[in-house]
Amino acid sequence: MSQRSAGPEILRLIELISRLPGLGPRSARRVALFLLKRRDTLLKPLAAALAEAGEKIDRCEICGNFDTVQPCAVCQADGRDDGLICVVEDVPDLWALERGGAFRGRYHVLGGVLSAIDGITPEDLNIATLISRVEAGGIREVILALNATVDGQTTAHYVADLLEGKGASVTRLAHGVPVGGELDHLDDGTLAAALRSRRDV
Amino acid sequence: MSQRSAGPEILRLIELISRLPGLGPRSARRVALFLLKRRDTLLKPLAAALAEAGEKIDRCEICGNFDTVQPCAVCQADGRDDGLICVVEDVPDLWALERGGAFRGRYHVLGGVLSAIDGITPEDLNIATLISRVEAGGIREVILALNATVDGQTTAHYVADLLEGKGASVTRLAHGVPVGGELDHLDDGTLAAALRSRRDV
Repeated sequence: MSQRSAGPEILRLIELISRLPGLGPRSARRVALFLLKRRDTLLKPLAAALAEAGEKIDRCEICGNFDTVQPCAVCQADGRDDGLICVVEDVPDLWALERGGAFRGRYHVLGGVLSAIDGITPEDLNIATLISRVEAGGIREVILALNATVDGQTTAHYVADLLEGKGASVTRLAHGVPVGGELDHLDDGTLAAALRSRRDV
Repeated sequence: MSQRSAGPEILRLIELISRLPGLGPRSARRVALFLLKRRDTLLKPLAAALAEAGEKIDRCEICGNFDTVQPCAVCQADGRDDGLICVVEDVPDLWALERGGAFRGRYHVLGGVLSAIDGITPEDLNIATLISRVEAGGIREVILALNATVDGQTTAHYVADLLEGKGASVTRLAHGVPVGGELDHLDDGTLAAALRSRRDV
């Protein structure tokens, strides 16, 4: 596309949008046009929301969650169990657990998982701050709620090793049949894990 | 997701992103997190580009293209054939034709096509301005480069009827085998059209 047909401002907008995950050049053009057609109802509000997010939202210094307050609302909230830390890979996992509402302790967001392929080392993750939190005392249990992927489990083992002997018990989420799931659609590993962890009715 | 875990600013950002075409709530959360993690390299530049687009980019009053100048760069460009208007459904079609570089006339962007299902009537499209341009004289030919869909072709017929007797010849793009296309993968309608319009070698 030449500058004569689109103008540098539109090209720049399309180029930035195409860097978002799941969007290629073609869908970026579609999104840009969609926005330009909805200037007052969507484009300007989105520009304002992004600017506000860029100004106000930051990582919580305690747990690594994104929020506009420091420490974040979850770290500040009353009535949560301070002795329980749930370690998650990233903020959407925290959001997922909060949507469920089954966990009422505190969180620790690693900001990723160890990955040899992507070159993610322990220094790239919020692991040191987790160890400090546990060493500071008062933590009864650390739940490693990491994804059941190879990288997730590697990270869980690494963190569990570091937490050994720090006074907190270290647990992980149970493997098993998803609620509402059909056995026929489950992989063998999940079925075997569900069998091993079977419980009395 | 409760406000306690994410904060109203993040929820607002996710809600706005989820309104973009091709993005649902889940991918909107992914995009929002992706942006928050790249605050200086992507989030802030995108906010600025959107704000600039909202300020500067507008529909060309002549052809309906989006640009920062009025009339748009294509309408202003020297060396284009003023007697030739190519009518397209929307701006990406104009961009596609400009990328190809095979057309050196002017454009007219309808801003959509007639659709009974979506309730798009002639008043919703830039049809009246097209008729005025042709009635103003000096237009030798109007090329209806609309998509070969039912709505696109309905719109083409509607526009062609309105242009009858206004002094300009009305043409449409040829149907046929795409360059590089394989016969085996073509639909019957395209094959039949390509046969009917066969040419001497």
